[in-house]
Amino acid sequence: MFKTDLEIAQECVMEPITEIAKKAGISEEDLEVYGKYKAKVSLDVLKKRAEEPDGKLILVTAINPTKAGEGKSTTTVGLADGFRRLGKKAMVALREPSLGPVFGLKGGAAGGGYAQVVPMEDINLHFTGDMHAITTCNNLISACLDNHIHQGNALDIDVNAVVWKRVLDMNDRSLRQIEIGLGPKANGVERKDGFNITVASEVMAILCLSHSLMDLKERLGNILIAYNTKKEPIYAKDLGIAGALAMIMKDAIKPNLVQTLEHTPVLIHGGPFANIAHGCNSVLATKTCLKLADYVITEAGFGADLGAEKFLDIKCRLADLHPSAVVIVATIRALKQHGGVSFEELKEENVDAMLAGCANLAKHIETIQAFGLPYVVAINEFATDTPAEVAALENWCKEHGHPMALSQVWAKGGAGAETLAQEVLRLCEEENHYHPIYDVEESIEDKIFKIASTCYGAGSVVYSEEAKEQIAMYQKRGWDKLPICMAKVPTSLSDQATLYGAPKDFAITVREFRPSLGAGFIVALTGSVMTMPGLPKHPAANNMDIDEDGHIVGLF
Amino acid sequence: MFKTDLEIAQECVMEPITEIAKKAGISEEDLEVYGKYKAKVSLDVLKKRAEEPDGKLILVTAINPTKAGEGKSTTTVGLADGFRRLGKKAMVALREPSLGPVFGLKGGAAGGGYAQVVPMEDINLHFTGDMHAITTCNNLISACLDNHIHQGNALDIDVNAVVWKRVLDMNDRSLRQIEIGLGPKANGVERKDGFNITVASEVMAILCLSHSLMDLKERLGNILIAYNTKKEPIYAKDLGIAGALAMIMKDAIKPNLVQTLEHTPVLIHGGPFANIAHGCNSVLATKTCLKLADYVITEAGFGADLGAEKFLDIKCRLADLHPSAVVIVATIRALKQHGGVSFEELKEENVDAMLAGCANLAKHIETIQAFGLPYVVAINEFATDTPAEVAALENWCKEHGHPMALSQVWAKGGAGAETLAQEVLRLCEEENHYHPIYDVEESIEDKIFKIASTCYGAGSVVYSEEAKEQIAMYQKRGWDKLPICMAKVPTSLSDQATLYGAPKDFAITVREFRPSLGAGFIVALTGSVMTMPGLPKHPAANNMDIDEDGHIVGLF
Repeated sequence: MFKTDLEIAQECVMEPITEIAKKAGISEEDLEVYGKYKAKVSLDVLKKRAEEPDGKLILVTAINPTKAGEGKSTTTVGLADGFRRLGKKAMVALREPSLGPVFGLKGGAAGGGYAQVVPMEDINLHFTGDMHAITTCNNLISACLDNHIHQGNALDIDVNAVVWKRVLDMNDRSLRQIEIGLGPKANGVERKDGFNITVASEVMAILCLSHSLMDLKERLGNILIAYNTKKEPIYAKDLGIAGALAMIMKDAIKPNLVQTLEHTPVLIHGGPFANIAHGCNSVLATKTCLKLADYVITEAGFGADLGAEKFLDIKCRLADLHPSAVVIVATIRALKQHGGVSFEELKEENVDAMLAGCANLAKHIETIQAFGLPYVVAINEFATDTPAEVAALENWCKEHGHPMALSQVWAKGGAGAETLAQEVLRLCEEENHYHPIYDVEESIEDKIFKIASTCYGAGSVVYSEEAKEQIAMYQKRGWDKLPICMAKVPTSLSDQATLYGAPKDFAITVREFRPSLGAGFIVALTGSVMTMPGLPKHPAANNMDIDEDGHIVGLF
Repeated sequence: MFKTDLEIAQECVMEPITEIAKKAGISEEDLEVYGKYKAKVSLDVLKKRAEEPDGKLILVTAINPTKAGEGKSTTTVGLADGFRRLGKKAMVALREPSLGPVFGLKGGAAGGGYAQVVPMEDINLHFTGDMHAITTCNNLISACLDNHIHQGNALDIDVNAVVWKRVLDMNDRSLRQIEIGLGPKANGVERKDGFNITVASEVMAILCLSHSLMDLKERLGNILIAYNTKKEPIYAKDLGIAGALAMIMKDAIKPNLVQTLEHTPVLIHGGPFANIAHGCNSVLATKTCLKLADYVITEAGFGADLGAEKFLDIKCRLADLHPSAVVIVATIRALKQHGGVSFEELKEENVDAMLAGCANLAKHIETIQAFGLPYVVAINEFATDTPAEVAALENWCKEHGHPMALSQVWAKGGAGAETLAQEVLRLCEEENHYHPIYDVEESIEDKIFKIASTCYGAGSVVYSEEAKEQIAMYQKRGWDKLPICMAKVPTSLSDQATLYGAPKDFAITVREFRPSLGAGFIVALTGSVMTMPGLPKHPAANNMDIDEDGHIVGLF
């Protein structure tokens, strides 16, 4: 009988966070402790160490995942523990999990098995309040916007052209489409609206791309919230609340320090949706880690087509980061799915299907090569993997000259990542020629074509009439010189959820654009993107409980 | 030029919260520090000291306030500092302010002038996350409820008989009346809904009346959320989420330790609306203070007709608390309003009007006498008070035999409360015969009549047809043996907002009841009660800003 992630986490004897801080080189003065095992780290760490060299940055990405995920967070955490076991000063920069989905399906974002970040209950519940601050910041814009319209609408906002939505950190399908301002006149102006989940808020994307509190304030002010009746853009700053918005975020902007099960220091900070946003932890957390550690392991959401592309084209470009190596996580299960096996049959041995599915892995390797970066394939071991499958995969990697390592971190923690860590160490010494795939000065169509052809294998990009009109409008406004944030299904290289493997020369359809002018990118939506999840028939909340001593069960 | 509250607070050199904890007698083991100046206190303090005697409990209440408030929090804080100056071991138990109203009109709930609780920015922003936990807890019920209906509605919930609303900690008038579940079927079932502000959530009332985490869980499960099509009640526990709800509140249930400007330890915890809930800080905070200090000063929302009545009839009864003395705060400004002066002219001297307005003070004194408690009138000094007015008021108190003290805490801090503190010390040694005004076993009508006649001076109580039907239904269900939580305008003894002074023999109209079965009381609504405030034309958010160093302006 396997232990649950929660049981493993609860067995861990954590070190006091003050000790973890010492280990990371964070002085007491720069630490704000939240309880015994969590802390906020001052942005002064970055200022004080501005002149010191950065450590090496290692990105963990993956092939197109099954709906169960490929284990990127788990690999990220285990790899850092592996580095520590080799005597290297390593740290992890991770995304914060969202609270809403915790009550829906099982699953979290703090790793799994013996490669987890703790205290996992706190991290998966309210943590240090960052998500709640984002919710408040987002909704103050909405309240002020609707109040502005109600109080006379001096900005002449078109009530049918409000693009800013409210958010809650809750899986609540009933709030996707609502009508507000009903009842007497004092209840405000009637209009259609909807809630997104908090991690889908542009405020989250902004938090993750800001360099400083002042940069954050400027970006929050630049959020596009509506158009006036002359179709001119209205920004959050037009409501006169940029200062208040930044004030709400004064603590949320500081990265959070926690530890792995093996007491490696971890900064966990920000967690934007990987579809409509860029899907990586905050620039400030990554940069702080780079000043504190020699090796910094981080991850980006979904497969390399979405997560790594945005990490390398948006985050690294904007933050002037230069990664040293990329770990591409694959599971034998997912490779079998890409080779045509149904989700229900992934447990059965099927070497041929797995080898056919390697086409998907090969495509993601090509993508990382296109960015000019050295890589290693990490096979995230599952109990259902058979020796024949593992041998065939090792052989495939050898034949094609792809560096590879088996990762057993789920079962063994850092000890299961030592081979992988050795391999990554070697890659970090290799010369690399990292460069983004496109130039921001190129046209929107050229940027999207480069992404789609290079990272997806698409042959063409089709635009809806609406998308074409938007491109023309953005050119007029000068919004076309921004990076592109692709919103696409994560399970396939294409925009069709079940088109597995490595489809070629297909067309990608861009349905609509959304300008995230505060974050500083243009979101290109292919297909419909869900920004407010729902609860399943039997929500995970039904299994959760807490006893008198505060002991929790059923969280994962 | 007066300094703002924020400027005064920012000038304070706070003691580290670990020092404040030591002063209060809280061991390191029972302290969870949140940053340098805030901490959560473990409920173990109560368990460990169960056998020790309690300190004296002092309630600060007021006459019917003007819209600017009478300064109860300020007096509460200053009085505790006054006790400390007299060498007494005193602590304060206060309500937590709500975040939403901070962005609306100026004003907070952490005292004022030189009698404040700090760090005031944090206390008025996210503090230790209690409000956000309540928001999440409340909204998980809603999400699960609507999801239950969407997923087949096994409980046969009548979509038109859902009584549970969503909440946000935001002044957002547009969310008062909404329609949810619009759009495709996957977006859930269409129905009318609305948001309340978080402090109006029953979860807040429950937090404040719970004895322990297990008691909290039971109460959360007992929340009435809807009726089924057979008109039978549906509770939160019927959704199978009582454990999850309690888990969400695992940290929020712990009282928060902060300090006054003069470094007196303060527990600030919970802040239910004083209209539709009982308006006092948590039982756990009050009880913890009573185990730690010899004198515990606390307050209850609005005037004695609402706040003190509920404190004495609901909280003290339920928690088996026995107060030792009551401070009735009055301002010369408010007395003039009760004597017929308009809000705009309150700055002008008017001895006659003030003396006429003393009828209001006299009525609240009667109320406290009816509860069998010793009292002192505290005149909260304002810069606009004239010597003639002060002398006349002193004389009125002397003539009628009412103990009285001038309170200058706003201008002088604890030094301005020494006379008041001396007087309260004397009262604490007096015998008192505290008893609630009604017996819970009495009928709903009898309980309400006792409250209305004794505390308001009403001659009769009128019930709407709906209220009458509800009483009949509650009797059938056995819900009529609970305390009554009156919802009434705070500015008048009556249910008419501008009926100042001490009206007599008027009728109070009960429009509707709302059963708060988790909290354990029946709310009786007189007139319409606002549970979601709106923003004014020029929200306070427009004046707020933060600089690079995190320095805040415009918060108050």
